[in-house]
Amino acid sequence: MSEHYNRLAGRNVDRIAALSDGLFAIAMTLIVLEVKVPEHAAVRGEAELWAALCALTPRLVTYLMSFLTLGIFWVGQGAQLGQIEEADRHYTWLQLCLLAVVAVLPFSTELLAEFITYRLALLVYWFNILLFGVAVYASWRYAGRAGLFKATATPEAASAFRNRVLRAQALYAIGAALCLLGTYYSIVFIFAVQLVYAVAPPVRWAQKLAG
Amino acid sequence: MSEHYNRLAGRNVDRIAALSDGLFAIAMTLIVLEVKVPEHAAVRGEAELWAALCALTPRLVTYLMSFLTLGIFWVGQGAQLGQIEEADRHYTWLQLCLLAVVAVLPFSTELLAEFITYRLALLVYWFNILLFGVAVYASWRYAGRAGLFKATATPEAASAFRNRVLRAQALYAIGAALCLLGTYYSIVFIFAVQLVYAVAPPVRWAQKLAG
Amino acid sequence: MSEHYNRLAGRNVDRIAALSDGLFAIAMTLIVLEVKVPEHAAVRGEAELWAALCALTPRLVTYLMSFLTLGIFWVGQGAQLGQIEEADRHYTWLQLCLLAVVAVLPFSTELLAEFITYRLALLVYWFNILLFGVAVYASWRYAGRAGLFKATATPEAASAFRNRVLRAQALYAIGAALCLLGTYYSIVFIFAVQLVYAVAPPVRWAQKLAG
Amino acid sequence: MSEHYNRLAGRNVDRIAALSDGLFAIAMTLIVLEVKVPEHAAVRGEAELWAALCALTPRLVTYLMSFLTLGIFWVGQGAQLGQIEEADRHYTWLQLCLLAVVAVLPFSTELLAEFITYRLALLVYWFNILLFGVAVYASWRYAGRAGLFKATATPEAASAFRNRVLRAQALYAIGAALCLLGTYYSIVFIFAVQLVYAVAPPVRWAQKLAG
Repeated sequence: MSEHYNRLAGRNVDRIAALSDGLFAIAMTLIVLEVKVPEHAAVRGEAELWAALCALTPRLVTYLMSFLTLGIFWVGQGAQLGQIEEADRHYTWLQLCLLAVVAVLPFSTELLAEFITYRLALLVYWFNILLFGVAVYASWRYAGRAGLFKATATPEAASAFRNRVLRAQALYAIGAALCLLGTYYSIVFIFAVQLVYAVAPPVRWAQKLAG
Repeated sequence: MSEHYNRLAGRNVDRIAALSDGLFAIAMTLIVLEVKVPEHAAVRGEAELWAALCALTPRLVTYLMSFLTLGIFWVGQGAQLGQIEEADRHYTWLQLCLLAVVAVLPFSTELLAEFITYRLALLVYWFNILLFGVAVYASWRYAGRAGLFKATATPEAASAFRNRVLRAQALYAIGAALCLLGTYYSIVFIFAVQLVYAVAPPVRWAQKLAG
Repeated sequence: MSEHYNRLAGRNVDRIAALSDGLFAIAMTLIVLEVKVPEHAAVRGEAELWAALCALTPRLVTYLMSFLTLGIFWVGQGAQLGQIEEADRHYTWLQLCLLAVVAVLPFSTELLAEFITYRLALLVYWFNILLFGVAVYASWRYAGRAGLFKATATPEAASAFRNRVLRAQALYAIGAALCLLGTYYSIVFIFAVQLVYAVAPPVRWAQKLAG
Repeated sequence: MSEHYNRLAGRNVDRIAALSDGLFAIAMTLIVLEVKVPEHAAVRGEAELWAALCALTPRLVTYLMSFLTLGIFWVGQGAQLGQIEEADRHYTWLQLCLLAVVAVLPFSTELLAEFITYRLALLVYWFNILLFGVAVYASWRYAGRAGLFKATATPEAASAFRNRVLRAQALYAIGAALCLLGTYYSIVFIFAVQLVYAVAPPVRWAQKLAG
């Protein structure tokens, strides 16, 4: 039976992709819900509405940062899934772990937005990014060992991908450590790293970094 | 490595479409959630329920307007994705920017519903539409330069699409400017423009406009 | 340009299906959210929790009824989309209207659950079902006139489908009219009609009805 | 007409899969929403934030347990759908029943998190798992009788799958019965069973169990 189930369960890469797209889409929308519309009762006139909207700026920053985070995660996971010929049961569960981490990001984002000067909130956010890195790295490793890659996938590509994850996580760790100086240093640093990864500007050092 | 990642990340148009469909579906459902059911305690009898439902009319109007907006965005983005042979990393990120803008529309909608007579609320809503226009226009431009179109896509079609975006945004800008007279003028105007774009009535000027 | 856009926009049946699946999935989950967990502070002991859960019964009934409604809508829309070879822009907008109606069902459901003895709440719920019927019927008509059906689709099948919509809507209208006697009569009647449509029991009259 | 509708409605396995992926993705995200960010007003300093986060531990446990539950459900349903050549109307409705059960899991999860020491809350959670088992078992049976399996699917595989459902449900029933001693015994036991099913460690007894 074990054989049967292992042979038939969790093989379909397309359904992993579809579940992931759904979950990422929801997470991307939920992080906006934390940007709450001001209460009407507390606002009298355009100037006060303007002030109320300006007060939302930290929320907007954490929203943008988390959208970038989710985008980077989504592109990275998509690059991996695109290399997989057929999943197996263990790979499917590694991907479900990865999705469990993604599903928690709206929580971490709201925690950070609410307690933006608290180191602990920043460390929780960083820990969430770290867990994603662990899940995506473990998936790469497992897929390589279990021989799940397409015939066109080269070992060099897979190893380069894995190094990319490690390099990014090293930078995020530096960003997290900066919270000793103040959480805003961390946020600016992490934000900048993410922008480089997303935009991949045609500058040599950035290309080397964001690969 | 840069080469590897650029070659393998974010190429899959189908996954962009799937993520978009999920995100649009959620945004289309979230904008209804702002139409809140009246509190039972505040309602005694059918007549009071009727009055409470009538009081929801502005919410219903903003719901319908935002559903139209999302529908127009979705059809427009779908028309573009249908022309793309294969995405690349930068195109994928432009589409993610577009989705970040879509994800914010429920916020703008609720802001407008809550502060329907405030110019600032209307301008925020318009700015959201403008940002979508910028993202979709930039995607058209980039796809053309990077040669991502299918072999069947003609340069004329792409340029006609881009002009369509500009024409629509010009009308939305006029609509936004009308808030100097009052926000309701803007809402009626924008609503009418959107209806013309959605329904595309078989009248010559409308055909010319909504293309 | 009009020609270009009409030729290229909103043709893809698969993306209509994907957007619909997302929107239906969200609506099916949102209607449960109205079944709220009892407050811990108000509950002391197992017996009180049992009583608090029993008090949720009307919510559970409206949840099940709305899940049936959404299921019937989804199966019906899927049967239609399965007949379509290629969409066009007007058909796509008819389907978007249909989805706008689906997105409102969680609101109607909560209204009915909150005001289960109010005729007005029941009529709003019925009106929501009616609007869905109108949208799905108009889609059938339009698809036939615009020649969007697959080569394998027979005119008889399409006409039989349309009659099925009319027959179901006639029954729902009778159910709504029963609210003159009391809303519970309506709910039981509509629930029963939906069960017959969903289960399609192998009895002759039910087969004839639920087709 | 009955013939027509039965022949055309609910045949598409892909749309069942897409609806399921959407619904599972939403359920997986909703169960996190119950892990609420602490109120800022109640927290003064890092130490209090740490304490407030520690107080969320039971919520985190029920989140992880429900994510595991949803993952197991999803993998199991996917294994079944992968065996189906073409659905029919009754099979589609059995799958909709299954999804209705999945949609309720966020409610059961929150009930358990809120009343973690109450036997009734645990029994409701177990009943939810039981209903899923019933729906998935009935789907297997029906698919076999109605001849919906692919040509490659062997009767042995289907029967082994069905036995797997029965074996898992027997273990869950034991877990539920343990609540006579205390709900924590049940939770630990069910959690352990789920981990074995998810991880499928390469140990003989675990392989035999989780098949």
